[in-house]
Amino acid sequence: MRATYMYGAGDVRVIDVPDPKIEEPTDAVVRIVAACVCGSDLHPYRSMPGSGKGTPMGHEFVGVVEETGSVVSGVQTGDLVIAPFAWQDNTCEFCREGFQTSCRHGGFWAAGGIGGGQAEAVRVPLADGTLVKAPVGEDSALMPSLLTLSDVFATGHHAAVRAGVNQRTTVTVIGDGAVGLLAVLSARRLGAERIILMGRHKTRTDLGLEFGATEVVAERGEEGIAKVLELTGGDGTHTVLECVGHKPAYEQALGVARVGGVISRVGVPQYDDGDIGWNLFGRNLTLTGGPAPVRHYIDELLPDVLRGAINPGKVFDRTVPLEQTPDGYRAMDDRDALKVLIQL
Amino acid sequence: MRATYMYGAGDVRVIDVPDPKIEEPTDAVVRIVAACVCGSDLHPYRSMPGSGKGTPMGHEFVGVVEETGSVVSGVQTGDLVIAPFAWQDNTCEFCREGFQTSCRHGGFWAAGGIGGGQAEAVRVPLADGTLVKAPVGEDSALMPSLLTLSDVFATGHHAAVRAGVNQRTTVTVIGDGAVGLLAVLSARRLGAERIILMGRHKTRTDLGLEFGATEVVAERGEEGIAKVLELTGGDGTHTVLECVGHKPAYEQALGVARVGGVISRVGVPQYDDGDIGWNLFGRNLTLTGGPAPVRHYIDELLPDVLRGAINPGKVFDRTVPLEQTPDGYRAMDDRDALKVLIQL
Repeated sequence: MRATYMYGAGDVRVIDVPDPKIEEPTDAVVRIVAACVCGSDLHPYRSMPGSGKGTPMGHEFVGVVEETGSVVSGVQTGDLVIAPFAWQDNTCEFCREGFQTSCRHGGFWAAGGIGGGQAEAVRVPLADGTLVKAPVGEDSALMPSLLTLSDVFATGHHAAVRAGVNQRTTVTVIGDGAVGLLAVLSARRLGAERIILMGRHKTRTDLGLEFGATEVVAERGEEGIAKVLELTGGDGTHTVLECVGHKPAYEQALGVARVGGVISRVGVPQYDDGDIGWNLFGRNLTLTGGPAPVRHYIDELLPDVLRGAINPGKVFDRTVPLEQTPDGYRAMDDRDALKVLIQL
Repeated sequence: MRATYMYGAGDVRVIDVPDPKIEEPTDAVVRIVAACVCGSDLHPYRSMPGSGKGTPMGHEFVGVVEETGSVVSGVQTGDLVIAPFAWQDNTCEFCREGFQTSCRHGGFWAAGGIGGGQAEAVRVPLADGTLVKAPVGEDSALMPSLLTLSDVFATGHHAAVRAGVNQRTTVTVIGDGAVGLLAVLSARRLGAERIILMGRHKTRTDLGLEFGATEVVAERGEEGIAKVLELTGGDGTHTVLECVGHKPAYEQALGVARVGGVISRVGVPQYDDGDIGWNLFGRNLTLTGGPAPVRHYIDELLPDVLRGAINPGKVFDRTVPLEQTPDGYRAMDDRDALKVLIQL
């Protein structure tokens, strides 16, 4: 089959690899219908040291079950399924507590002998705990929105949930990438009435306004902080959803958080040390967030997608066939595309 | 009157200063009955640059109202009152949200023209918002416990509250100072059934066991982390109450926090940058805490003290008269005393 591999910064190729097959009785093999390129794929795309070996890519996909291991009972051949960006048993203590990305027996795609989602097919470990059936056909117009449940929508939702967003909380969302825009949608869906979106790409922030943002602040750094404070009577907002992952975004979050507020991060931090001294402590701020336990959220979010109440799939502004996945990376890296859907 | 001033590291003096008097109609003047030395007073005691001017000291006291400004209505002359370590109007938005240490109109003792609590008397700004009446006489045997409501007990309670401690959460308390021990008491009071106390001074950890700790870990750093993990099947605890304020204590907290857990800090951080990368983010840990909004908690904690259900005053293991306050600092700095009560 054909699959996407990265060989170093800027070097993405679609190559021939052996077809995946059932290895464990808990496995399924899924033929991929739609996948996509993630903002987090751009981190190695910009920094990965060159290697002759290559690493499989992709952790977001919707597909059709082709075959199941002998003990798989939750999904069967022919089911259209959504895969979270991590696989898990969904039964261990951590999973039951809602932290599926820390499953005692789980792991991530494109690692440890498991393939990536930017491919024709993939072996899914712990299929019962991982895959969620969607009651639609593979030609459904809902496909882009279903695909966001793999990662970006559930991740935006996680940011809002961990921040405790509700109708009484004001919100700042930092970042106008797909996750940031879907954090706006999520905050609105959870009842927030005032959502300030910090982003400087007009086509993106326009979509943010459509998703529920009430104000856009294009300035960044100190200027951006000053603008949000000006909009909030000098106080900042109760919640700040940091959807970037770079340190300046965290510093911006610190600057716009209201006394007693919560900074919720879902962009994987590309730094270790950050300011957690008096700037965080003195105002009783809380710093939370982490990798979204997508599996935990799909059951809640899927019905709204199926009935068309929300349309998170709007974050996809380009579609490519699998063979053109490298172009998809390039377009996202150049900010020509917000998020690229790979149609198989 | 006589008041305690610090002139530099290790240089504490009791000196003559003018008597405090009413300056604003919202003021009260309180004659101090009992005060104490705080662990946080030891930070300047160890590092303050020498100065000819000196700065007033003390932010924990119980006293008797001597005089009130013309608009003060909540307390009157003769009342025995407890003073939180910050003063506030207790009516602004931040106060109503439970963040009195960030009161829009409040401030801290021993700063901005307000005296300190290690003195014969003090002017109390915003007396109605600040002082809480205790229905006992000034010779009450409850005095040490009432005095802990000024800071250390309420601060330990804050650590536990912000961490979300309840009967389902396991707890690690880092630090066997007065705040750490009272964080143990607070966690127990909020229902925690398993409380691991990290501290290496046996007389202190013995009091921790009396307050409700179920295990003591004397080791520190990597060794201490390994021990807590061993006690918890490799997982760590749901909540970690960091009651020290130094960076190694934060690193220890990171090491013993369970997936999805909360690190709650109440020791004023003596550092700015700390690890908030994948070590915090990857396991969906939350970092919270800050200066305790003591005023917010006294109403809840006072009844338990008055009926003798708890005895937080046990943290005082030495009593000195005001003139010997410098000896009190020395004893705490030498770890000869856990916490020193100044009896006036």
